[in-house]
Parts: sequence; structure tokens; C-alpha cells
Amino acid sequence: MTEARLDVIAIGNAIVDVIAAADDRLLAEEGLAKGSMRLIDAAEATRLYGRMGAARETSGGSAANTAAGVAALGGRAGFIGQVAPDQLGDVFAHDIRALGVEFTTPPGTGDVPTARCLILVTPDAQRTMNTFLGASQHLPASALDAAQIEAAAILYLEGYLWDPEEPRWAMIKAIDIARAAGRRVAFTLSDSFCIARHRDGFNQLIDDGKIDILFANEEEIKSLSGEDEFEAAVAAVQDRVPVLVATRSEKGAVAVENGRRAEVAAEPVRVVDTTGAGDLFAAGFLLGHARGRPLEERLRMGAIAAAEVISHYGARPEADVKALVADKLG
Amino acid sequence: MTEARLDVIAIGNAIVDVIAAADDRLLAEEGLAKGSMRLIDAAEATRLYGRMGAARETSGGSAANTAAGVAALGGRAGFIGQVAPDQLGDVFAHDIRALGVEFTTPPGTGDVPTARCLILVTPDAQRTMNTFLGASQHLPASALDAAQIEAAAILYLEGYLWDPEEPRWAMIKAIDIARAAGRRVAFTLSDSFCIARHRDGFNQLIDDGKIDILFANEEEIKSLSGEDEFEAAVAAVQDRVPVLVATRSEKGAVAVENGRRAEVAAEPVRVVDTTGAGDLFAAGFLLGHARGRPLEERLRMGAIAAAEVISHYGARPEADVKALVADKLG
Repeated sequence: MTEARLDVIAIGNAIVDVIAAADDRLLAEEGLAKGSMRLIDAAEATRLYGRMGAARETSGGSAANTAAGVAALGGRAGFIGQVAPDQLGDVFAHDIRALGVEFTTPPGTGDVPTARCLILVTPDAQRTMNTFLGASQHLPASALDAAQIEAAAILYLEGYLWDPEEPRWAMIKAIDIARAAGRRVAFTLSDSFCIARHRDGFNQLIDDGKIDILFANEEEIKSLSGEDEFEAAVAAVQDRVPVLVATRSEKGAVAVENGRRAEVAAEPVRVVDTTGAGDLFAAGFLLGHARGRPLEERLRMGAIAAAEVISHYGARPEADVKALVADKLG
Repeated sequence: MTEARLDVIAIGNAIVDVIAAADDRLLAEEGLAKGSMRLIDAAEATRLYGRMGAARETSGGSAANTAAGVAALGGRAGFIGQVAPDQLGDVFAHDIRALGVEFTTPPGTGDVPTARCLILVTPDAQRTMNTFLGASQHLPASALDAAQIEAAAILYLEGYLWDPEEPRWAMIKAIDIARAAGRRVAFTLSDSFCIARHRDGFNQLIDDGKIDILFANEEEIKSLSGEDEFEAAVAAVQDRVPVLVATRSEKGAVAVENGRRAEVAAEPVRVVDTTGAGDLFAAGFLLGHARGRPLEERLRMGAIAAAEVISHYGARPEADVKALVADKLG
């Protein structure tokens, strides 16, 4: 096994976020559960966009945010995801490259436009997300660059992308490439509805020994395990993967590595917008893992990166998180 | 003359702003004068975008911001401007309509994409603008809806749009439509470089009696008049138009209407981002003018609207400026 050129190569949805203020009445009229994420089709995306107020667009996507976070932390990151050859695809590619992330996936045919996530921000700062996956759902296995995956210490996969068939096969192929090259594979469960749709598939992946590092938040690990209580859920999953990372928002995070448990408290921070917290926690933990840092330190790197991104609007870091981590870890 | 259905119909560039942080070194390397606005072509837009950091996109354009401001102040506004049938064109149309502005200009052929303004924000909060005018430059006179212009109390024109030939002819036709319907015509000089390019044309427009309300900032009125000193410049221009409005940033604004002069101080406010200050000042003044308010009150409406927009990032109002004006004017 040669030395890794990249710390992390992430595969996920390539999405542009469209963010607008909304009132509770609009959510009620649309029958939207506050704070939820749902998938919508092109017609629904057009209709709902028409009801939204003036918006601003920024690049997003869960695993893409993580790749951006790894780069911001001083790591070497790559991202694989499908955009269309259109203006939003250009915006996505520009932004992730501007953050120092290697992004070489060719744009698709253009039959389906670049994905977008319509985000309604209510006065209580909660975000309700409506995602049109567009081109993102059509990432083919043929778009993978095997040498790029082999060159990364960790392959990181986004559970959201397990829904559509093409990227699911692409991710399975990527796992095989990474494992054959002796690399680690990390997976994030993304959300509890996603688990409900794919519980058997996810459990199969885990029990086939394909996953080295599993990320889940409290709801997700409960959903995956079928347990109602957090500690029971951790106990049920921890021996099935080499590394389990369970995040709990303001209650911090727990990691179990080969039977050894470590915990970290949440960093004290004024919460402005929680979008991207899990994505950035994963970025910090993964970079620490790729660099062989102790479990406690990986958790701290995750907590520091997450704290930075929730202290402002938007899902990508703004402050110098590399300096923050160096400062706090000494 | 029938009663006006709209208070203001504005004609201007239909632009999407692309905003990214930049350091002074980038400005120096690019040879950019801080705080300036320059026009760039498609190739330069692509090249410079490639050097910019991760960005966010919002709708902009000077006269479009003014139309948005009139609507936010409780007025009835329309906007005329050329976008392309592309994603950024959709974003522009969505945002201005979401703010309550009537926007019915058909998208162009798509040969040229929607305009964008690459805005580099340096750590001192100054903005350096690089505008690719794209489809905006191709607004044809045939895209005008004469009935819409006849229905507005005031036609408001953006000097920036005087540069390219097609929209210049469209604006000249719009002036004729408005004047034939007995409406008022307002014009903003946009920037001093724009005046340098078109001083003769602007002076001709004014001296032909085509302009009822002329907006200029300190640099612009000096450039137009050729006077080095503000008061001398005002004195040189004030008798050539029925209403002259000269804005002076933190020094407030001066208006002269048929020989009678009024002044207003700037509102006390913590300045975050000055983009849109002039556009919103025009919105407040124009709505007051359309509603027959006294000169002093029109100036106050302008100052209050301008103060709101400079108290946050972005060139369009966020607070309830209608309520702010009602509150402050009693």
C-alpha cells in the first residue's frame, strides 16, 4: 500500500442550496415538518420555488460539505459527485475547488439539471429542506476515477446517495476499489428516514465488513438498531464496526473503537444555524483518523469544526478552522 | 391622464451578484481599484471567477434594487430588464417577483447568458465589482410593454444601461412613451466612469428636457458638471432639471426642486455594507414623489430606506422598511 495522496475522498450529492426566509404559515400550508428533509421532483421544485421569497444560492451537499471541511482543516480532500453542464453545476464546481477540494467528476449529459435544495428558514432559525436531486442521482460507476480512490486514506460515503440506483452501484464499486487498495471506508447514515428506507441494505453493508467507520446521530443510531434508547443503540452497534461515531448535538459525541470508548463534550458556542454540524464533525474526525491521531483527539477535532460551522449561517466553514484546531489542541 | 397603476417602473440591468471574500493581494494582482465597478467580457468573467473563493449568489442590479425597494416600502413597482432563459435568469426573475415587483420582460434567445456581477469583498468591507453584462446588454425596444410604462407615475432609468446600444434605444423609446402619457422621467447617473463615457449624451438628454428627476452622488455631479466642488456642481446643474437629488453618503443628501432647496442628514446607523445605498435612497425618494409628498419628506424616505440597506449585507432591504418609514415620519 503506497502512501495516501489524499486524506479523504468523499462521494455524495452535488447540490446547490437555495435559502430563503419563510414563516410558519407557509410550512403549515405546505404540510412541511419543521427541520425535516424530503426529496422532491422537478415539478414540485418549480412550484415550491415559486412560493419562496427572495433567496440566496450557495454550494452544499452533505459529503461535499465534509470534503470542504477537511480542506479547510488543512487536509487533502477530494469529492466525487454528479453535476449537469449548467450554471448551477458551474457554481458547485467552482465553490468546492475554490475551497481546495479536488473535484474532477465530469458533468453529466445535461438531460437532468444540477441538484438543488430549497431551504426554508423560519424565524426560530430552523431549516426545512426540500431536495431536488436532479443530476446527482445519476452518478454512474463509470464516472469514478479508480486511481483517485486508491490514493485516498479514507473513502467517505453519504447515506443519502443510497436512494437512487446508479450512485448506489457507484458507491459499491468505490468500496471495492478502496478495500482492494487497503484503504478505510467511512459511511454516514445521513438521516433516519433514509435508514427507514434502507435499513436492511445498511445492516448488510455493515455485517459484510465493508464499513470501517460509521457515523450516526442519535436518531439515526436508534433507527438503525431498532433500540429506543441511545446507550442501548450504541451497545447494539458498537461491536459490528471497527469505529462507531455517534453525535448528539449539544450533548457532544461518543466514539467506540474496537471496544474502547471515548467521549467529547460539545464546544461552547452561540448557535446561529445548525446546518452542516454533522458534516463538519465528520470532517474533523476523518482528518484526525487519516493522520493517525488518538480517538479522543479525533473527537475534539470533530467538535471544534462542528462548533465553527454552527456559529454562522451556511454549511461550510468561514473561520480558519485549521488554526482553531491547532490553537485548541495545542 | 389616467391614475397610475404603478408608482415606479424601472429599466436597468438584470444581474445576479456573485459575492466572495477576497484579500488585498488578489486585488493588487488583478490591478483592480478597490471600490470600483468595471465591465468585463465573458472570457474575463470566467477567468476571474476561477480566481475567486467560494461564493454566494443573490439577485442585484441597480435599478432592480430600486424597484425592489419601492415594493418593500409599500409602493407598486415594475421592472424591465433582459435575462436569458437559463438558471441565473430564473433566479433573477424569481427573486424580484418574490419581492412583489411586476416583471414581465420575456427572457431573451439564450445566445448570451444572464448577466452577473463578480463582487470581491475585502476585509475592510469594501466591494470591488466586475460586471459581465451578458443578456442585459441586449434589451431590445421591442421588449417594452408600452401600456405598462404608461401606467406608471414615474419611469426610472439606470445610467449603466446607457453603455450598450440596444438598451439605450429601448430607454429612449421608453422616455417617449412615458412623456407622451404625461408621466415623470427619472434618471440616475450610476457612476462617474459611466458619465465620462457619456457626458455629452447625458447633458443632451437633460437639456432636451427629457429628465424630470436627476439622481447623482457627489462624484457623479462633479463629473457631469465638470466642477471640482460639490456646491458649485449643484449650482451648475440645479436649474437644468425640475428636480435634482444629490446624495453624499454619510453627509446626507440635497434636493433642489424648481429652485427650492432641501437637505436631509444621513440616518444614524452602523454601516455593514454600503452596496445598494444609492439604489434604496432613490426608491424612497421616488415613492414619495409618486405619492405627492413634500420635498423634505421624500428626502427622509430616501435616507431611511438607504440606512436600512447599509445596516446589513446585500443590496435589497431585509427589515420592514414600510413600517420603518411610517414609524419615523409619524
